[in-house]
Amino acid sequence: MTSLEQIKVIAFDADDTLWENEPIFKSAIEEFCQLMVPYGNPEQCAQEVYEVQMHNLSLYGYGIKPFTLSLIETAIRISEQNVSNEVISKIIEIGQRMLATDNPLLPGVQETLQALSGKYRLVMATKGDLLDQERKLIRSGLEDYFHHIEIMSQKLPHNYQKLVTHLDLSPESFLMVGNSVKSDIIPVLEIGGHAVHIPFHTTWAHEHAELPADHDQFKSLTDIRQLLPLLGV
Amino acid sequence: MTSLEQIKVIAFDADDTLWENEPIFKSAIEEFCQLMVPYGNPEQCAQEVYEVQMHNLSLYGYGIKPFTLSLIETAIRISEQNVSNEVISKIIEIGQRMLATDNPLLPGVQETLQALSGKYRLVMATKGDLLDQERKLIRSGLEDYFHHIEIMSQKLPHNYQKLVTHLDLSPESFLMVGNSVKSDIIPVLEIGGHAVHIPFHTTWAHEHAELPADHDQFKSLTDIRQLLPLLGV
Repeated sequence: MTSLEQIKVIAFDADDTLWENEPIFKSAIEEFCQLMVPYGNPEQCAQEVYEVQMHNLSLYGYGIKPFTLSLIETAIRISEQNVSNEVISKIIEIGQRMLATDNPLLPGVQETLQALSGKYRLVMATKGDLLDQERKLIRSGLEDYFHHIEIMSQKLPHNYQKLVTHLDLSPESFLMVGNSVKSDIIPVLEIGGHAVHIPFHTTWAHEHAELPADHDQFKSLTDIRQLLPLLGV
Repeated sequence: MTSLEQIKVIAFDADDTLWENEPIFKSAIEEFCQLMVPYGNPEQCAQEVYEVQMHNLSLYGYGIKPFTLSLIETAIRISEQNVSNEVISKIIEIGQRMLATDNPLLPGVQETLQALSGKYRLVMATKGDLLDQERKLIRSGLEDYFHHIEIMSQKLPHNYQKLVTHLDLSPESFLMVGNSVKSDIIPVLEIGGHAVHIPFHTTWAHEHAELPADHDQFKSLTDIRQLLPLLGV
């Protein structure tokens, strides 16, 4: 990875980069599919959830509320319109519980942000719902390290270009750090920015993508703390 | 209204300031309450919807997806757990139709933004869901007039202060234009900004508030086109 001395702004993905998120969705799907056992096996059920989510994605976007609506739709579909009001209420509660849950911080996040925040402008760049992401950030205790939260409806090259322009930067001064190759890495390299991949043990099927081949402005790490020696901090 | 020559940035609320929005929610509630006629009269039903919405507001935030979830919860509640899967599917469809609806532009919006956009930096400052608001903006054809969309989880003084700071402005250089006295006017005056109120014929009960008394940095207009003579454009 070259020209790291030009970096001025470091943007961090939030879910599964700063804190655990996908495991919360996974266990919600498990809980849901247990409720659906009368209508089919959990594996088929999880597959149906995914299909309904994908069908609704462009209309609903990302986050817990779209997820809850898709669970209700899935329940009606796989029960062939026979799911009870009680179960639908339980699904609504699953969503509400998710919204109220603390997302556990990943190891090393706090100390790494603290060390970086004096030297770089830090931004949180995330998909999903502003209210939900803001709530997670406030609960995480990390709020003071960030200049602002950038909510992106999609993590596509032109959205990153907008962010970089909005920050009055050239792309070479921008570093994105995240766990999703598809959302956090490839589109950033495409606009000429730097990208660091820190994989999380679980990735949502929708976010799967191939790692880029050797690239001057790309690096894969196994732990967020490795950012410090990489950047010479 | 004084010192308007200092204004550099004009922020516009979106829903019911640039385009119709509340009427779409109102007619969705009417449609929902027609579905609920077997369980009670439409007036009581609308009141129940409002109560469930208010109960969920801090957890769910604003927008069509929270609204849809609250409608489903209301249906279960007022039917005493007897609402059919078919009706729940219809509620989900009401929400999806709302998400896919074009919000009609209000009169004079296009020409006013066009006239202002060369002389001021224009920002869209709105609550709700980024994906939904971005979609409305793109469909409206107004996108090119705006420097960016600012999604605010709440329109409170400290959120406006953050926006103003983020724009590298002093509050006296900031003018907010909107239809909600509670969200668009009072908090902006509180931080020392300018505010113009343009009432819309329908206001959501939650947004009701008293107009401020005479205030140097406040003005009430009846039509967005009146901004042009007010600002000397």
